[in-house]
Amino acid sequence: MQGWSDQPTYGWRKRLYTIIFEADTTAGRRFDEILLVAICASVLVVVLGSVPAIQARASTLLWLLEWLFTLAFTVEYIARLACVRHPWRYALSLYGLVDLASILPTYLAILVPELYYLIDVRLLRLMRVFRILRLSAYVSEASVLREALYHARRKIFVFLIFVCIVVVIIGTLMTIIEGPAHGFTSIPVGIYWAIVTLSTTGYGDLVPRTPLGQAITACVILLGYGVIAIPTGIMGAEISASMRRRPVTTRTCTHCMTEGHDLDARFCKHCGQALSPHQFDEPAIRSR
Amino acid sequence: MQGWSDQPTYGWRKRLYTIIFEADTTAGRRFDEILLVAICASVLVVVLGSVPAIQARASTLLWLLEWLFTLAFTVEYIARLACVRHPWRYALSLYGLVDLASILPTYLAILVPELYYLIDVRLLRLMRVFRILRLSAYVSEASVLREALYHARRKIFVFLIFVCIVVVIIGTLMTIIEGPAHGFTSIPVGIYWAIVTLSTTGYGDLVPRTPLGQAITACVILLGYGVIAIPTGIMGAEISASMRRRPVTTRTCTHCMTEGHDLDARFCKHCGQALSPHQFDEPAIRSR
Amino acid sequence: MQGWSDQPTYGWRKRLYTIIFEADTTAGRRFDEILLVAICASVLVVVLGSVPAIQARASTLLWLLEWLFTLAFTVEYIARLACVRHPWRYALSLYGLVDLASILPTYLAILVPELYYLIDVRLLRLMRVFRILRLSAYVSEASVLREALYHARRKIFVFLIFVCIVVVIIGTLMTIIEGPAHGFTSIPVGIYWAIVTLSTTGYGDLVPRTPLGQAITACVILLGYGVIAIPTGIMGAEISASMRRRPVTTRTCTHCMTEGHDLDARFCKHCGQALSPHQFDEPAIRSR
Amino acid sequence: MQGWSDQPTYGWRKRLYTIIFEADTTAGRRFDEILLVAICASVLVVVLGSVPAIQARASTLLWLLEWLFTLAFTVEYIARLACVRHPWRYALSLYGLVDLASILPTYLAILVPELYYLIDVRLLRLMRVFRILRLSAYVSEASVLREALYHARRKIFVFLIFVCIVVVIIGTLMTIIEGPAHGFTSIPVGIYWAIVTLSTTGYGDLVPRTPLGQAITACVILLGYGVIAIPTGIMGAEISASMRRRPVTTRTCTHCMTEGHDLDARFCKHCGQALSPHQFDEPAIRSR
Repeated sequence: MQGWSDQPTYGWRKRLYTIIFEADTTAGRRFDEILLVAICASVLVVVLGSVPAIQARASTLLWLLEWLFTLAFTVEYIARLACVRHPWRYALSLYGLVDLASILPTYLAILVPELYYLIDVRLLRLMRVFRILRLSAYVSEASVLREALYHARRKIFVFLIFVCIVVVIIGTLMTIIEGPAHGFTSIPVGIYWAIVTLSTTGYGDLVPRTPLGQAITACVILLGYGVIAIPTGIMGAEISASMRRRPVTTRTCTHCMTEGHDLDARFCKHCGQALSPHQFDEPAIRSR
Repeated sequence: MQGWSDQPTYGWRKRLYTIIFEADTTAGRRFDEILLVAICASVLVVVLGSVPAIQARASTLLWLLEWLFTLAFTVEYIARLACVRHPWRYALSLYGLVDLASILPTYLAILVPELYYLIDVRLLRLMRVFRILRLSAYVSEASVLREALYHARRKIFVFLIFVCIVVVIIGTLMTIIEGPAHGFTSIPVGIYWAIVTLSTTGYGDLVPRTPLGQAITACVILLGYGVIAIPTGIMGAEISASMRRRPVTTRTCTHCMTEGHDLDARFCKHCGQALSPHQFDEPAIRSR
Repeated sequence: MQGWSDQPTYGWRKRLYTIIFEADTTAGRRFDEILLVAICASVLVVVLGSVPAIQARASTLLWLLEWLFTLAFTVEYIARLACVRHPWRYALSLYGLVDLASILPTYLAILVPELYYLIDVRLLRLMRVFRILRLSAYVSEASVLREALYHARRKIFVFLIFVCIVVVIIGTLMTIIEGPAHGFTSIPVGIYWAIVTLSTTGYGDLVPRTPLGQAITACVILLGYGVIAIPTGIMGAEISASMRRRPVTTRTCTHCMTEGHDLDARFCKHCGQALSPHQFDEPAIRSR
Repeated sequence: MQGWSDQPTYGWRKRLYTIIFEADTTAGRRFDEILLVAICASVLVVVLGSVPAIQARASTLLWLLEWLFTLAFTVEYIARLACVRHPWRYALSLYGLVDLASILPTYLAILVPELYYLIDVRLLRLMRVFRILRLSAYVSEASVLREALYHARRKIFVFLIFVCIVVVIIGTLMTIIEGPAHGFTSIPVGIYWAIVTLSTTGYGDLVPRTPLGQAITACVILLGYGVIAIPTGIMGAEISASMRRRPVTTRTCTHCMTEGHDLDARFCKHCGQALSPHQFDEPAIRSR
């Protein structure tokens, strides 16, 4: 949370802030672990509560647990508001909104019961916990994936625009050919069919029944074969590049200043000078 | 549009040409942006108009909007014809034909209502707008994908021929084994089933019901596992290669000012001068 | 066909051999082109003949065409037998057996009509034509794919054995859980379901209906996610390796004897000497 | 089995141990081959025995075979217990438990017939046989795959957590939108649907029927396109990296006789002696 400068400078607010927002102390780390378990447990309560058989048997218990978790999260939310320097800034930040959204549904469900299930939005709070716990190895792996996604974003965007154009044209074509009699009641339905088909999901709720429709479907799938492979190819290439970008070692030859020498190398492969063996420790391996 | 030499040299035609065909001036850029929005909006009108519920309520509005867009595109088409030097050359070019095809269906639909939906062909006009707007970062990413597809074209062609042979033989085999009783009424239907199965789409409208048919299906899928992976492998390898082909470094020769020299190069490959080894530091590696 | 040494040394047999088996002369090349078209056309006749509607209308025409093709292929088969030095060696070779298998079904269908559709086996003859025509660019691409498959064969074999074990155990488990009431009538059916599911084909003819079955299916798919990706990863890595293995250029520096210099390089990047510009022609690019 | 030190030192127990646990002698190798065939055959007996038609005809034969295999495996299990130094250590090891689990079901099925099919667990014993037979080429390929999976484990774990969060939220959303009328009877069912959809399996037993549900499904699939590609990208990149990590060259230092030096290395990285530049020719690149 560096750069936020939202940390109070003294007193109980500072202690509370250290526990709730940070994970460097034992208490702070324990708090985050309990939070992680509580979020998962409260979502599980909602998920189980939606099963008619379980609801019939344990409705009171589930109702109690649900309110227990909601009250706990409410107290936590108020504590967060209380200990930050600029409560409004926190309340309007992404994390503040997610925190609020994770307690509101229970209260609103008293008025509008349909909102009850939205409690699952709580799962989004896991993002914070993961970020705070700084499970360092996993964070580094996640950052490789994020970096790959970041570098691939434009390629995937270009690909999605291309897919959208193709999908609208094929969906329209199939709606004309198959018609309402075979379930293609409108172009949006045709587009839905085209997306389900091109992604190879293929539910089978809508299928071409005319010979012409089947022929076009077969051609679309065959020609689309190479195209479907593009996002996978993009991600594969980007993850490969992300992994390669990080030098496997930072061992540097003190003589010719080249780096990236293998871990088992004892002499520089460029100038033949001896490499320092003391660089051979674990932290020398930066990435994977 | 370099090399076309279709640009008039003076007067209102030159001004119109600059606005309609080019995107270097403010007016030209604005025109293209409006065109992009108009194309998307007009396709949306057609798509929404195909939904019975919306058609029932807003048919007059949709009808009006549709004719408005069509008239606007017609005026634009005539303007394009008017301002180019060789109208026929434009009219018969790919873009000219797409432009014509995007206004014709509305007029023809007066006589043949079925043609109405073909208005969606308008989406193809987006290609031109993208090309003119030269969203440079995206164009460069798209060119990586296009290059990868170009290099992969023969491998994918070989793969498709192989798939076609396999699909015809398996489709024939399953038609013999399952027969019309289980929906395999003819070999083309069997081929359609084989394509839907091998691409892992698996609609479920046609499924093997005899034990022998199920055994063959299981074998085909299992053996086809590695084969299905080929196009993805091809695209991944080609995109990787495309990305690698572009200069990764900004090592610049101080003598001839060319860049993109390999990291292990000691002499400029263009002019033979020694490269500065001090450029060999981290920031020299451009990310991509 | 080097190394076969089956070529007759003189007379009409040598002339016939040159036309039928080779593609170096104009006549030989034309013969192979006609053969390619004839094979495709004859398979098309069989495929179309299986459609009841077409069969009803054009049965005589299709019957005539079918016999025409069969007689032509029979004459060709006899000609092949006549012009090779060792007829039995040809007849028992893979290509000889395929050639025989492509004419037999028509004759046998007089006795056993079911065999009629096996005429599609003719498609396998395309392999020979492709090989003889030596469409060199495509053959080289195909060899990259073949090489990748060859290098990947053991990895794919290990993967398939692993998949087989998993599929038998999951299939057994689901047969016990779901039982005959939900269509899982026996373990082979359960294995068929497991293969269809793990390959993400998902026909939907057999689906888990019990909560436990659905939970296991969800876990299997989730955990199988990474596993499903393995063959694609294997093929991608192998195709990448196949492409990298071929040096992009064979440009060699005559001074320090290093090779693999870029096509646009004019000086050796290792010793700074000028590279010979005469190596800059097409054949210098070996692979892609 | 180095490091186990469970090998008896003399007498018949040592001879038995050599045959049963090792594969270095002819007898030991033959024993493992027979075991491999027996395991596959006994699983085949169970699988075939579950087919009603086969069960009806050959129930006695299958029953006999099944007891024959079980008794043989029981004798083998007792022999294993008898010849190791520390029977309990073996009995409680992973392999010991698998060995026990592969004979128990037949005996227990006398009391609880449902357990009968669990005999398929025997397939897990194949792991041991493969390990002992040391089919070296395959073991090395398997180790590339295992290494890739090992390096990818954290990336795949991060990916699975991400997928789990997405799947719970989408499943909840669709349960609210579609409701029990369209089969989404509870959130777990919705999550099951989300997993089946995102993995592109798409059974079709549960499909969105409301326009809003179909629109969300289409968006989820479209946006999920790039995401679905991630595990494949991970595996591809890791397998590529695994393959690259192994020495690709046979460049040998003539001084310290180590091999696997980089192609651009000029000095041995192990002893600092200059590498011979004449080894820099084509055959120096081992294929892999």
